[in-house]
Amino acid sequence: MLHANLLADLQSAFPPDRFYTDVADCYAYAYDNSRKIFPPEAVLFPLTTAEVQLIVSLCNQYQVPLIPRGRGTGTAGGSLPEFGGIALSMERMLNIIAVDPANRAIVTEPGVLNQSIQDAAKPFGFFWPPDPSSALFSSIGGNIATSAGGPHAVKYGTTRDHVLGLKAVTGKGELITTGCYTTKGVVGYDLTRLLIGSEGTLAVITEATLKLTALPSAVAGITAHFQDLTSCTTAIVKIMTLPQLPSALEFLDSGALDLIRGRYPDMLPIDTNAMLMIEVDGSSNDISPELSAILGACQTSGLIHATQVDNTAALWRARKMLSPLLREIAPKKINEDVVVPVSTLPEFLNGLARLSSQYQLSNVNFGHAGNGNIHVNLLINPDDLEQVERAEKCLDQIFDLVIRLRGTLSGEHGIGSEKRAFVTKEIDNATLNLMKHIKQLFDPNNILNPGKLFP
Amino acid sequence: MLHANLLADLQSAFPPDRFYTDVADCYAYAYDNSRKIFPPEAVLFPLTTAEVQLIVSLCNQYQVPLIPRGRGTGTAGGSLPEFGGIALSMERMLNIIAVDPANRAIVTEPGVLNQSIQDAAKPFGFFWPPDPSSALFSSIGGNIATSAGGPHAVKYGTTRDHVLGLKAVTGKGELITTGCYTTKGVVGYDLTRLLIGSEGTLAVITEATLKLTALPSAVAGITAHFQDLTSCTTAIVKIMTLPQLPSALEFLDSGALDLIRGRYPDMLPIDTNAMLMIEVDGSSNDISPELSAILGACQTSGLIHATQVDNTAALWRARKMLSPLLREIAPKKINEDVVVPVSTLPEFLNGLARLSSQYQLSNVNFGHAGNGNIHVNLLINPDDLEQVERAEKCLDQIFDLVIRLRGTLSGEHGIGSEKRAFVTKEIDNATLNLMKHIKQLFDPNNILNPGKLFP
Repeated sequence: MLHANLLADLQSAFPPDRFYTDVADCYAYAYDNSRKIFPPEAVLFPLTTAEVQLIVSLCNQYQVPLIPRGRGTGTAGGSLPEFGGIALSMERMLNIIAVDPANRAIVTEPGVLNQSIQDAAKPFGFFWPPDPSSALFSSIGGNIATSAGGPHAVKYGTTRDHVLGLKAVTGKGELITTGCYTTKGVVGYDLTRLLIGSEGTLAVITEATLKLTALPSAVAGITAHFQDLTSCTTAIVKIMTLPQLPSALEFLDSGALDLIRGRYPDMLPIDTNAMLMIEVDGSSNDISPELSAILGACQTSGLIHATQVDNTAALWRARKMLSPLLREIAPKKINEDVVVPVSTLPEFLNGLARLSSQYQLSNVNFGHAGNGNIHVNLLINPDDLEQVERAEKCLDQIFDLVIRLRGTLSGEHGIGSEKRAFVTKEIDNATLNLMKHIKQLFDPNNILNPGKLFP
Repeated sequence: MLHANLLADLQSAFPPDRFYTDVADCYAYAYDNSRKIFPPEAVLFPLTTAEVQLIVSLCNQYQVPLIPRGRGTGTAGGSLPEFGGIALSMERMLNIIAVDPANRAIVTEPGVLNQSIQDAAKPFGFFWPPDPSSALFSSIGGNIATSAGGPHAVKYGTTRDHVLGLKAVTGKGELITTGCYTTKGVVGYDLTRLLIGSEGTLAVITEATLKLTALPSAVAGITAHFQDLTSCTTAIVKIMTLPQLPSALEFLDSGALDLIRGRYPDMLPIDTNAMLMIEVDGSSNDISPELSAILGACQTSGLIHATQVDNTAALWRARKMLSPLLREIAPKKINEDVVVPVSTLPEFLNGLARLSSQYQLSNVNFGHAGNGNIHVNLLINPDDLEQVERAEKCLDQIFDLVIRLRGTLSGEHGIGSEKRAFVTKEIDNATLNLMKHIKQLFDPNNILNPGKLFP
């Protein structure tokens, strides 16, 4: 329960439509795409950096957890008020402060949606490359907090590659200004990237300067159907040794294909057991030779056919359908986000097949193969406790395999609360302790998103 | 003077050819390209991470400054043993640990030269984009410590965009492992980029995993001659609004051109008062339309002529000649490295002309115009104290102009000791204090490169 004095202080500073305490109102801020539920005791909607500073200062004074939140589309539980406290919804800081095409930059408040940034940049021939599946409804602040990626990361990188500077309020309530407005700058430590991906544990981002990229003049797509997994992973490795990077290289395994077949029976040939959805972009001159090179790299023994597709929008609709379809058949899927070096994808996917067979589990795997970033989904019935136990053992071995192959446990979703138990598999004690001390430095009273990111 | 016990401990751990204490031997490690001289009391040449840990541990025990050093090519004094102590030369950690073209990565020790990395990557069709002028003789460790850039940064970014992970020994002597081996990864805070550009003040880098980029299949160059500065800066702004980025866009003002004329009287037309050296790279298909677009953007009222040049090597030789030529005419030049938003370059360069005229100073300006990164050189006679005083006042106003235009004081050289007096013009107190606390966290006894980077 929040202290009466704190409630009074907040009431005097925020009108009722920006300060929820009613249980029903707060409930909408209790969950994210991890499907866990932790209701906050209050929700605040700041409009300015000064208001964020006031809130952080009060939460320090009353030692109340403060959980920054974009649009709650994260899958790792990073925005859940696990220990109660106040949800700090940034969704009403909605101003795009400046669109500056001459300097290829947009300055924005954190609540602005990823898609709104794309819409603001497009008339000038630019886009902002991070493209999480949630781009239509996830916010820039959330994208930055998780260093969001997406299919285009294989060519364009992730959020950390596309932010020039930030304004943020630390857990101590201090306003800091990081980075710069220009494309080069080395004055002081790189606090910009320290905040990117820190999942709201260090500071609340209140303004971001985003670096824009020129829209490609042409885009084309390929679908490649394979009889077997091995031929498909061989093709992935071959494609990634070509000099030019595809703008997307998405992999779907037989489980993912069966999901699509369940909904659209005639969409896919029955003998396709693994598939690639490939996009190339660039100048109109380059598209044709790039498509040829990729079609050539798809020629493995188990290739059924690889063809150029005219409508890449349909390609992406089918790909984006996968997560919702998975929810329908397995509301309690364990959804992972591991990354392995591209050259080890054949070994990793074979190992995954072996482990799921050994533990008698259904799994569905798809993802951003060009980065080696595979979304591994173990489909479980949460009421079957014996199966849940098997799934946990299997997951543990999957993570061990990822680490043995020099991979990482999360490519884009983050740690949040869902994956923190496994962080020590990847990060050694000295490095982890240093991160914990950085957390203490920014947030000595541990009020900002407590418990997240660390084991 | 180093404590006798410390000397004894070091003598028992390092052979004489890797532990210099003789004044003459140490003198070669007393300077860098800032031309200041601070001899260390000893020089150590570790070969392994374990040796670095031992040295850091001893320096902590005896409270002795330890100054990590690559090849001493920095211009900001970042590797100078300003307060004595031990120079830690990383130049013998020379192993390239792995060349992994399938995963577009090279794992290397820090002493390896930038050029050696290029040589190792080239047979596989790759390069490592950071290209400081010193690439032939500067080390990867030094490139990382300063987040080195170079002419190609306009298209490819700087060092911080091309490192996947690091091993490093903190000022406390702890070995940390940052980042990952894959092109995506969001587990834990981004310590990789916190170390990149930290100028040896936080940790000693002992291993780096570098991200490789495919070599372009074609490269072409343009030179554009202008009657006046305004026409030239107008062209820069026009070029940078084109969708495709040039791979280099180098600017030379009349002072820089006169320097070249002094050495090579027939190289440049006499009416050229400002010049651009432009490079484009990409596929062979794209080069021709890109050249046309850039030639079009050069069409300003003061354009004399803009032409494609066949031999880009000659272009770069002339450009790289500038720094040595400057040394000859003005051994005590004040060499700055400021950055302004590209759209403000006309205003900045006009302001610079006004200030140098007001303070009756000769200046020579050239640099990476596509990033707005201008090397401003004030040519002074160090024996003329009145002139030196005028130069200092002028510099202060140049920096104020840079900040007013939303620029930054250093694009690629770093702060070191040369620019620390000006850091507070750019970084506010709260942000700077946070950086100082991060320094304390990594290096509580302030033994690593003490005094650098902070005002």
